[in-house]
Amino acid sequence: MKSPYPSTPQRHDFAAHPTTLKRVPALLKNVSFNGGFWAPRLETNRRVTLSTEYRLCKQTGHIDAWKLNWKPGQPNPPHIFWDSDLAKWIEAAAYSLATHPDRMLEKRVDGVVDLMAKAQAPDGYLNTHFLAVEPAKRWTNLRDCHELYCAGHLIEGAVAYYQATGKKKMLDVLCRYADHIDSVFGREKGKKRGYCGHEEVELALVKLYRATGKRRYLKLAKFFIDERGRRFPHYFDLEAKARGKDPGKWNAERYRPHQAHLPVRAQTKLAGHAVRALYLCSGMADVAAETGDRTLLAACKRLWQNVTSQRMYITGGVGSAHAGERFTFDYDLPNESAYAETCANIALVFFAQRLLNIEADARYADVMERTLYNGVLSGVSLDGKRFFYVNPLAQHPDAFRSSNWVTERQKWFGCACCPPNIARLFASLGQYVYSQGPNEITVHLYAQGIARFKMGNRAVRLTQRTEYPWQETAEISVNPDAPMKFTLSLRIPGWCRRTAIRINGKPLSLRPLMRKGYARIRRRWKPGDRVELTFPMPVERIEAHPAVRMDCGRVALQRGPIVYCLEEIDNRANLDDICLPRSSRLTAKFNPRLLNGAVVITGQGLRRNPARWDGQLYRMEASKTKSVALKAIPYFLWNNRKPGEMLVWIREVNSAGGGRRRTASGYRG
Amino acid sequence: MKSPYPSTPQRHDFAAHPTTLKRVPALLKNVSFNGGFWAPRLETNRRVTLSTEYRLCKQTGHIDAWKLNWKPGQPNPPHIFWDSDLAKWIEAAAYSLATHPDRMLEKRVDGVVDLMAKAQAPDGYLNTHFLAVEPAKRWTNLRDCHELYCAGHLIEGAVAYYQATGKKKMLDVLCRYADHIDSVFGREKGKKRGYCGHEEVELALVKLYRATGKRRYLKLAKFFIDERGRRFPHYFDLEAKARGKDPGKWNAERYRPHQAHLPVRAQTKLAGHAVRALYLCSGMADVAAETGDRTLLAACKRLWQNVTSQRMYITGGVGSAHAGERFTFDYDLPNESAYAETCANIALVFFAQRLLNIEADARYADVMERTLYNGVLSGVSLDGKRFFYVNPLAQHPDAFRSSNWVTERQKWFGCACCPPNIARLFASLGQYVYSQGPNEITVHLYAQGIARFKMGNRAVRLTQRTEYPWQETAEISVNPDAPMKFTLSLRIPGWCRRTAIRINGKPLSLRPLMRKGYARIRRRWKPGDRVELTFPMPVERIEAHPAVRMDCGRVALQRGPIVYCLEEIDNRANLDDICLPRSSRLTAKFNPRLLNGAVVITGQGLRRNPARWDGQLYRMEASKTKSVALKAIPYFLWNNRKPGEMLVWIREVNSAGGGRRRTASGYRG
Repeated sequence: MKSPYPSTPQRHDFAAHPTTLKRVPALLKNVSFNGGFWAPRLETNRRVTLSTEYRLCKQTGHIDAWKLNWKPGQPNPPHIFWDSDLAKWIEAAAYSLATHPDRMLEKRVDGVVDLMAKAQAPDGYLNTHFLAVEPAKRWTNLRDCHELYCAGHLIEGAVAYYQATGKKKMLDVLCRYADHIDSVFGREKGKKRGYCGHEEVELALVKLYRATGKRRYLKLAKFFIDERGRRFPHYFDLEAKARGKDPGKWNAERYRPHQAHLPVRAQTKLAGHAVRALYLCSGMADVAAETGDRTLLAACKRLWQNVTSQRMYITGGVGSAHAGERFTFDYDLPNESAYAETCANIALVFFAQRLLNIEADARYADVMERTLYNGVLSGVSLDGKRFFYVNPLAQHPDAFRSSNWVTERQKWFGCACCPPNIARLFASLGQYVYSQGPNEITVHLYAQGIARFKMGNRAVRLTQRTEYPWQETAEISVNPDAPMKFTLSLRIPGWCRRTAIRINGKPLSLRPLMRKGYARIRRRWKPGDRVELTFPMPVERIEAHPAVRMDCGRVALQRGPIVYCLEEIDNRANLDDICLPRSSRLTAKFNPRLLNGAVVITGQGLRRNPARWDGQLYRMEASKTKSVALKAIPYFLWNNRKPGEMLVWIREVNSAGGGRRRTASGYRG
Repeated sequence: MKSPYPSTPQRHDFAAHPTTLKRVPALLKNVSFNGGFWAPRLETNRRVTLSTEYRLCKQTGHIDAWKLNWKPGQPNPPHIFWDSDLAKWIEAAAYSLATHPDRMLEKRVDGVVDLMAKAQAPDGYLNTHFLAVEPAKRWTNLRDCHELYCAGHLIEGAVAYYQATGKKKMLDVLCRYADHIDSVFGREKGKKRGYCGHEEVELALVKLYRATGKRRYLKLAKFFIDERGRRFPHYFDLEAKARGKDPGKWNAERYRPHQAHLPVRAQTKLAGHAVRALYLCSGMADVAAETGDRTLLAACKRLWQNVTSQRMYITGGVGSAHAGERFTFDYDLPNESAYAETCANIALVFFAQRLLNIEADARYADVMERTLYNGVLSGVSLDGKRFFYVNPLAQHPDAFRSSNWVTERQKWFGCACCPPNIARLFASLGQYVYSQGPNEITVHLYAQGIARFKMGNRAVRLTQRTEYPWQETAEISVNPDAPMKFTLSLRIPGWCRRTAIRINGKPLSLRPLMRKGYARIRRRWKPGDRVELTFPMPVERIEAHPAVRMDCGRVALQRGPIVYCLEEIDNRANLDDICLPRSSRLTAKFNPRLLNGAVVITGQGLRRNPARWDGQLYRMEASKTKSVALKAIPYFLWNNRKPGEMLVWIREVNSAGGGRRRTASGYRG
């Protein structure tokens, strides 16, 4: 079996792909965005975020660390995470270069690559922390020290940079490192049967396999996945003993944070550290796709089902607990203390995209879209300069301060994983919008721009014109070189009750075309064919499952894929006291002046008057409520004006107000 | 000025008391309880809790620590808290001995006292940890090491034991220790101007002053209070420097946990560690009462106002945050993560009682009662053997386990402050039920039993017959030796809308008698006079202030002073999904078989059917609700059957149910 992924930057190869991999993402360089919702955001990502992050990597020592000249006693030793931060920035830069050549940016990357090449040990080993700070401790603590994790990000960066520029230097460096890793880890005698405490290298090795065609990288990825969580005895126990630490009596719980409490195929709940868990799932899906491993794919689907139907915020955020940045238990989705790390949300997008290319089921695309437009976009400020690590669904600033949590997006973090993760996702957005299969183009997301595809020996150009998600329509022009027969699969969003499609002005009967949420339109496409889609976007009130105890009696407002929130600046303090009558009419309107233009939802709510409480904390009298104007903005835009309360889940009441039937009394509070 | 508190176990002295101290608690040995709500609980406290705690003090080494034979390298060194745990047990035992002589118990206390006397250093110093473990570090870290805190509890124990038994040995030991402390601390040259990081010694020194008549103890208490939080520079900075730690630039926040961020008279919010804050307030009230210090009393009242009108749970629990066991900010009263440490709630009772004796304002008694019957009683199991350290107002067992919190009452704790604190409060309950002023007897709480008072040269016996708080009536027989004129002040509970009083069958017009929530009945009382009180106890729905964001749209059920809760065992899981229509009739009924007999509230609620969700996590369709029977039990009785969900604040809806107006759709969850 040979992967259909492009082994050179030039082309896809569908000649012999396994049945599990039906399609591959569009080639990045062939997708461009102009106007609409995304182009300005991607430009900010390219112009502001990428260069800001480079500057911060420089300032914080992430780049100079590669000179390996840190000496004991000096401040600021290269941290075990640093290689990954910089690698993600390289990956983001590479994606950007694929669509927007930029000599200055390329020079910056080349500069770093030169340092890396020089830093590489003769045996291929490559890690600034362990080369400069703890050379004797290589591979002695896989559980905590992130060596393979850093290796994975470097590999992703190398593959992306090679595919964007054709330059092989970084890829060669990382192949040597991967070969070294392959010589250290494996089932063969003398090798370590270990794996990383923070997954990432698995999916990276599959990328490296796809880029180089070398099956040993795929085999190594599969080895890491297959070994995970097995006991003969447990590898993390073995290496702890080798370090002179007694791990004590076996207890699977201690490796749950690392998804190593059970072999991966026996895991049914997404557990532990959320980013790790979803990077693992992404790697599992990649290996399953390339090998046709059905038990692995089944495990992926079980874990997908668990996370999306029991452990995901309505924003697509995942990993609800601050302590351990982790998943807790089914339906445990606290709003104010939500962790929902930006990286975890991005990792859910990765996982969704991988399953989507195995099976074009719109359930995956629905979650991918939900997460992208809400829990990922919230991670970066409108100006592209500040980032949320944590994406709560409610905020009371005093509560956040009281817990030592930040109330605003930050410029950078001690562990700066999220900012470059956003940058690389946005810079590669084209790969999430379109996939291509044999004789099929699949549109997962609606975003204005142009995409080009090679179908056999012919070229097809798709031009999307849409203000989605603000507006309800999208128009796609299909332009093959010459008339040709193929399938255009269009995702019908799960949130949409009545999508309509017309081709060249003629309404299409959707029902017979639908397969797993996609309208599969197979026809002889002619240059200039016009597909018009209409997605009615009324304001929807969403309920959460009754077991989500925090959301009982509450609704979230959603319009199209966008989840809304109330902010203090628009609605005054004590947002939790606001309630929304069931009968209240909600109006959506585009406001071009607000937050660079956004659809805002307004309506009437009810609230009590705190001034009438005369210093009482508790009382028996039923309070009267009065009508107040409500204004909700898209969740991802919150915290772009000033810090204050924010609330996604709004209390709903079934009638239009008035106090309780009881009379006032002489109760002393 | 001389304190009206009894300087011997025999008598009160009102000859010359300051204007701020209008009354003193009843003498413990003169109050007995029989039958009714309290007697069985106090018997459990005496028979089970006291002996269980002694056994645990023995097992854990708290007692043998006094032999001072711990040697470096041995396990289980005496902990800096230990003296206080044992001291509180001694105090509890003493109160018990005051009303229920018990040779065995007295022998146990005497055994410990003998060890203490032998352990005492020649200069009077007395602390097992510092004598046995860190002898060189005495008084070097007042902020963290609890030396004065332990001293305070030992003093309280000594005073109680002396007053109960007349035995002076322990009192003499502690006077020597107090004299030593007085020689170390003060404004005089060569003395330390420090104070304890954990307040307690202040109120204890006032007790010692009252028991001995020696004003230097009162003066020392006042010194500790007056010095607190002053900067010339800050004492905790000074002692940190002396220990070789650079405290860094001044930042008041670092001493907020210790209420030392500001001088006490400048503090307007109850801040930091809750037990410390309320022990400080109690000490401040004591010093204000004994000295007539108006600025100190004003500070007490400001802090009282803050805690009770902005920072107290409806259960009377205080200190909402786990991290730091502390107060956070106004109206921050999370239910599931409530800390509300049993000791803090008890400390609020102490503070209330002290203010009540300065000024018989029923606001203080209302809070004292609320806390006693809810947030304190919840701290101990029905069988008297298990204790809550933390008293949440909602529990989801999985959430508690996920946060490493316990879901059940525990036998003991590493820091075992709460169990003996409950024991000493219950054993001294009589002091909270009655006070006596010049020519006045004040009844703060209603509890079946007999209390005797000396009024001048005459004796008065009050006999209460009542099943309060289960039943709505109380009958008090007043029996002076001979007819005499005095005031009987009866508290009219703040929760009661229409109290009725009859004397010898004749209704009383209450309005002209009311002063600050007390009906002050001044008359010539004759032997056999019968006062009948009726407190109607409908089930009340209580609302919290709109700024308590966790309670918006919710009500708590209260009947009389008792706050109710739902438990999973009675109402199935997902308690948060239950809502209570405003129109739902709630019925209260005594069930003699449930939890040793309790009034249970039943009614109809509404909830959704989770089975109808087909694995969806979010959906646009409005759910239908169906009617379900609800059963609420007194909050303090929860967790006596089996662990499970619990909920105090129940969602309220204004109409009787039905789904939203929307139709089902093809939305994919």
